[in-house]
Amino acid sequence: MPAIIDKAFFDELASIARYETLSFFRHQLVVDNKNEHGFDPVTQADVRTEQALRKYIAEKFPDHGIYGEEGGTEGIEQDFIWVIDPIDGTRNFISGIPLWGTLVGLLHKGRAVAGMMAQPFTRELFFATPEGSFFQHADDVPQKLKVRKTLSLAEATLFSTAPSLFDEKTGRGFSRLEQTVRFTRFGTDCYAFAMLAAGLIDLVIETRLKPYDVVALVPVIEKAGGVITQWNGGPAEQGGDIIAAATRQLYENAVQKLHRGQINQF
Amino acid sequence: MPAIIDKAFFDELASIARYETLSFFRHQLVVDNKNEHGFDPVTQADVRTEQALRKYIAEKFPDHGIYGEEGGTEGIEQDFIWVIDPIDGTRNFISGIPLWGTLVGLLHKGRAVAGMMAQPFTRELFFATPEGSFFQHADDVPQKLKVRKTLSLAEATLFSTAPSLFDEKTGRGFSRLEQTVRFTRFGTDCYAFAMLAAGLIDLVIETRLKPYDVVALVPVIEKAGGVITQWNGGPAEQGGDIIAAATRQLYENAVQKLHRGQINQF
Repeated sequence: MPAIIDKAFFDELASIARYETLSFFRHQLVVDNKNEHGFDPVTQADVRTEQALRKYIAEKFPDHGIYGEEGGTEGIEQDFIWVIDPIDGTRNFISGIPLWGTLVGLLHKGRAVAGMMAQPFTRELFFATPEGSFFQHADDVPQKLKVRKTLSLAEATLFSTAPSLFDEKTGRGFSRLEQTVRFTRFGTDCYAFAMLAAGLIDLVIETRLKPYDVVALVPVIEKAGGVITQWNGGPAEQGGDIIAAATRQLYENAVQKLHRGQINQF
Repeated sequence: MPAIIDKAFFDELASIARYETLSFFRHQLVVDNKNEHGFDPVTQADVRTEQALRKYIAEKFPDHGIYGEEGGTEGIEQDFIWVIDPIDGTRNFISGIPLWGTLVGLLHKGRAVAGMMAQPFTRELFFATPEGSFFQHADDVPQKLKVRKTLSLAEATLFSTAPSLFDEKTGRGFSRLEQTVRFTRFGTDCYAFAMLAAGLIDLVIETRLKPYDVVALVPVIEKAGGVITQWNGGPAEQGGDIIAAATRQLYENAVQKLHRGQINQF
């Protein structure tokens, strides 16, 4: 692990994100359609933020690879690869809702070892270094993040981005889980993963994530004591259907609901 | 209209809300169950914030009535009645998500004439006086709020708090509308109404609101140029099923979807 991956480094990335995004947030957004068959907004803020982050990282770590949502991959054969989503939660961004975030994660041989989620409007920074997982609000003293000790689904609060993202099969699993939890809320993108690391919610269930949607969040959750994998137990770093849970027992309980009865229903 | 209902007055209310809520937000919340048959969290922050707001308002306007979520009604026979929801969006509040808000509205003979939504964590204040509808972030200069000019459903972004809140009948109406809009997002409580007034989204659809969930937001939306009523066109001040739209034409288009085919489907 490069010694330089510390709070000061993430502060610098968050500062770049703030500078590049806030001039576009709630101001004359230029929204294109990336995907002609659906709605996948990409904004100038997205492209500019990623360019600025890539430039800074490439100067600091010329031997590392970089993989970003907008700019693609460079140096993918390297042991260390930076994974960037300049604005995770573009629909929140274009709607003025401050639950989007700038995600930067570091992979070492495919495993996420450090990362951050910065929310420039609320001035929140969630980040994980080898020392642990931390939160800083504005200029306050950083706090160590720790998941809460929820074990049963009946006590658990569940978050997801949007019900419309699930397909028939994943929707059935999500629906079974939803019926057993304390309550379910939508609309959160990366923000819910940060709240889970902070001990404020218990479960996040997402589907069809890209690696850049989740790599940065894996160490933030794991170093706060939480569990994050694909629904089938595979590595969250590869994206896909993702589950994050506050505790191992809650994770096992939730996974059982996501999969139970699946065979019979086909 | 009492001359004293101005920015300074709402600043003071927002300052009380900030003082009372932020010590509880993300800190050792005490959550009770108000409703044994469902989940309706009430927190200490809710009760304390309403008490403080009532005290301040009663001192300023001893002849006005007050109706609050937690403390009930006083002086309901008065021409002017203040309507308070100390924390609208309790589930967001207890989950650490900064989309809750403190709502204070003023009714004159049943019609909402002034109001505010304050978000203490993000330091946002949306308020309406007889002069118009305004937004202030932190110590920035206040900006006048203005809805955007969206006319067609295909261009419109739609927000609602949670799909689970709709019953069979309202759910069918919502679903018809959802199929025609640009995209739908959930999870916003009062925050979406503020974004509509700010020209960042186009439609808000809610069901089973209480008067204190909406009275404060009516003048914020109307004085920004938007439309807000019950689904059947009745006064939004009375709560119930609520629609807010950026323009009159968009409103008419959306209402048609909410109601179309209803008779045939019974």
